[in-house]
Amino acid sequence: MISLGERESLHNEAAQPGDSFGLLPDIIDEIRTALDEGQTEKVRELVLPLHYADQADLIENLPPDERRALVTLLKPEFNAEILHELNDYVRDEVIATLGYQDLASALVELDSDDALYVVAQLDEAERAPVMERLPADLRALIEQGLSLPEYSAGRLMQRELVAVPAYWTVGETIDYLRAATRLPEDFDALYVVDPRHRPVGQVRLSVMLRRQRVQRLRDIMDTDIPLIRTTADQEEVARLFRDRDLMSAPVVDASGRLVGRVTVDDIIDVIDEEAEDDMLRLAGVAEVDLYRAIIDTVKARVSWLGVNLITASLASLVIGLFESTLQSIVALAILMPIVSSIGGNAGTQALTVAVRSLATKELTPANSWRILGKEMLVGVLNGLILAVVVGLIAWVWFGRTDIGYVIAAAVVINLTVAGLSGIAIPLALQRLRVDPAVASSVFLTAITDMIGFFAFLGLAAVFLVP
Amino acid sequence: MISLGERESLHNEAAQPGDSFGLLPDIIDEIRTALDEGQTEKVRELVLPLHYADQADLIENLPPDERRALVTLLKPEFNAEILHELNDYVRDEVIATLGYQDLASALVELDSDDALYVVAQLDEAERAPVMERLPADLRALIEQGLSLPEYSAGRLMQRELVAVPAYWTVGETIDYLRAATRLPEDFDALYVVDPRHRPVGQVRLSVMLRRQRVQRLRDIMDTDIPLIRTTADQEEVARLFRDRDLMSAPVVDASGRLVGRVTVDDIIDVIDEEAEDDMLRLAGVAEVDLYRAIIDTVKARVSWLGVNLITASLASLVIGLFESTLQSIVALAILMPIVSSIGGNAGTQALTVAVRSLATKELTPANSWRILGKEMLVGVLNGLILAVVVGLIAWVWFGRTDIGYVIAAAVVINLTVAGLSGIAIPLALQRLRVDPAVASSVFLTAITDMIGFFAFLGLAAVFLVP
Repeated sequence: MISLGERESLHNEAAQPGDSFGLLPDIIDEIRTALDEGQTEKVRELVLPLHYADQADLIENLPPDERRALVTLLKPEFNAEILHELNDYVRDEVIATLGYQDLASALVELDSDDALYVVAQLDEAERAPVMERLPADLRALIEQGLSLPEYSAGRLMQRELVAVPAYWTVGETIDYLRAATRLPEDFDALYVVDPRHRPVGQVRLSVMLRRQRVQRLRDIMDTDIPLIRTTADQEEVARLFRDRDLMSAPVVDASGRLVGRVTVDDIIDVIDEEAEDDMLRLAGVAEVDLYRAIIDTVKARVSWLGVNLITASLASLVIGLFESTLQSIVALAILMPIVSSIGGNAGTQALTVAVRSLATKELTPANSWRILGKEMLVGVLNGLILAVVVGLIAWVWFGRTDIGYVIAAAVVINLTVAGLSGIAIPLALQRLRVDPAVASSVFLTAITDMIGFFAFLGLAAVFLVP
Repeated sequence: MISLGERESLHNEAAQPGDSFGLLPDIIDEIRTALDEGQTEKVRELVLPLHYADQADLIENLPPDERRALVTLLKPEFNAEILHELNDYVRDEVIATLGYQDLASALVELDSDDALYVVAQLDEAERAPVMERLPADLRALIEQGLSLPEYSAGRLMQRELVAVPAYWTVGETIDYLRAATRLPEDFDALYVVDPRHRPVGQVRLSVMLRRQRVQRLRDIMDTDIPLIRTTADQEEVARLFRDRDLMSAPVVDASGRLVGRVTVDDIIDVIDEEAEDDMLRLAGVAEVDLYRAIIDTVKARVSWLGVNLITASLASLVIGLFESTLQSIVALAILMPIVSSIGGNAGTQALTVAVRSLATKELTPANSWRILGKEMLVGVLNGLILAVVVGLIAWVWFGRTDIGYVIAAAVVINLTVAGLSGIAIPLALQRLRVDPAVASSVFLTAITDMIGFFAFLGLAAVFLVP
């Protein structure tokens, strides 16, 4: 048994607050030492009793060469569940180490949805050799799954489920479950289907267990159940699970036939990924690339920096308009990053709230005008507060009240624009069907930089005497 | 029944990709019109059949005055589950509209964990009048819950569970469940306890249903179950659920007695909040404050901007060191924001990956040195690529190769520092037990701004001839 919340005494001083309960640094060190010294048996003794999630953590934590050594060593007993838990890059490596035959044998041990997930992650070129090593029934299931759109309920669902007719009694159903040999490993509800295999209701096990054997399923089933199409977007499915506190839900094909069920453990992965995606995209990274090869990481990140270079150059063009003003009052060059920096930060605050609220559907067409007005006002008020401070700093530093007034005015203008843009940009992108998380922050910085420099230097050019 | 994935035809053209399946803008409009025209009965007819999650969405979407009107109108049939689904600010408003007595009546309808959650969100001053209106048993449960630390398993758990002795047979257990009157509304497993009420195993319902009536629970129970202490941190509990694909888990007190169970629906809320928190904190906002009053929003955000003002002023101080250089070559003032901007963006990429990896425990003491080295190299390589482009831009723009060389060198330096800092800052903060998501980006921007300006202007001061 694992106990959570009483492990403090086991943590060594290097442990972080909220450190992993599963894998203590001590164990990792011990395994690495054994691996290093070639003590094959000791490594297996240490690793094999670990839960597959912990084995996955361990594999991720090792440097690439030790990773290969460990996987090679574990091959005969390699737990396929590990594959599903691994970071994409590490999984690719592990699969390469396993080879097609061992991978195929491992896949057979997985639930159909997990096997599909792993195959879907493979390169096109790798899929064929793995698929031809799979048993025909699993291969057919996976091919069917691959034909469905990515990020759809069909990709997420498990084929294994229990479907029963409405005229059965509780007693008959329990007797059937006791006798059946091919049941899913775990399930929380039975689906009641009509003769065409279309779901008409569900009976949760905790409900069935409380009813008398003579009761018919049709009288105890819950008919208010969600029906998910195989083509439904996984984000929508996740939202449904979250709102309705579901454990599982039936999935139907185009003709309404029951073909699978989505379970909450897969939904947790979806929710996790979606929130992570938004956070990372806002920062211009596509994914957690901790284990990605250096060259690939550079390639993936440099394009975002290239776009940023363009917007930064545009901001420089704006500054260039005021070359003579800068030449005559060098204090402006010293102070101008303050205006753009505060604007960028205030805009990012509004932007992040907007991107998150769009994802959770809290920001909708119904309230977007109201929120836009609110953020503009927040920008004005924050602008006024900071303008006083910035104005004082400029005045004290350079001993000129006029520079103080000009920078104060620029800060108010830039923060107002920042508040507005922080909401308006993601809303506009969403309307244009572009993921607001990906593109918003580039536009925002471009605007707050350019407006910041233009407002400050422009006002200075008009009102300041050199 | 709700169908997901075949609603496209119902969407009007204003609908966003992945729009809410629950509440179409049309329905919101219809309800608002009815509310506006005082058609009380029509409003109730439209709203009451909606799922409580959709009712919560609706309430959030309305402007404050319509919100109050709607809640007042729904009072007699107000579904307490709505409270749990609402954004914090909107919940406060709704509770104020409901009043203490109606709130207390609503709380009685909730599961103990949800009632505790709502009471915990109340201001200290509001708690007492609500608590004294609650029935004694619920009040006692909530008081017990409030005595546990915030964000602990004890706050998350439900008290309602089914505990049975190991010597019972499957048949006896099913008979007990059929006869028992006070069972939880839903449960997926039975906990097997010893005479001191300490859990010794669990039997999932899907397992029990497959076994013969004569089998004893002790022979079919799963003893490899997690035990969570009431004081365990909710993030740790979420990680456990995620890694082990759990549906529920027993919670024990300090003496090991079974006192409750955590269910996966609460874990989804925790995962959602934690990911959201990190994303928002990186941007300097404490929470999604879409519905927060304007003045409160300003107060909450201005302190972050104030800190940003200090770091921006430090960057200006660095620029000030090179006043005479800037005066003689104004091109430097025009180009310098490019160096700081690219540095800030490259740093943010590394930082975001680091903060996320720390949260998911992918970045650990065991691999932090390796990752640090990788990010530094990525910084150097990205720096070299961008330096060529930036150098060319500067050369073409101002017709001076020496300025091109200087800015190119400054970009390489700043991106290397940015890559290093992006990983090192959150690691250091975590070591100091400060939430890396909160404080990292301030430090990062301060460093990339100052190093960017110092490297560029410093090199210019040394190598450039005016």
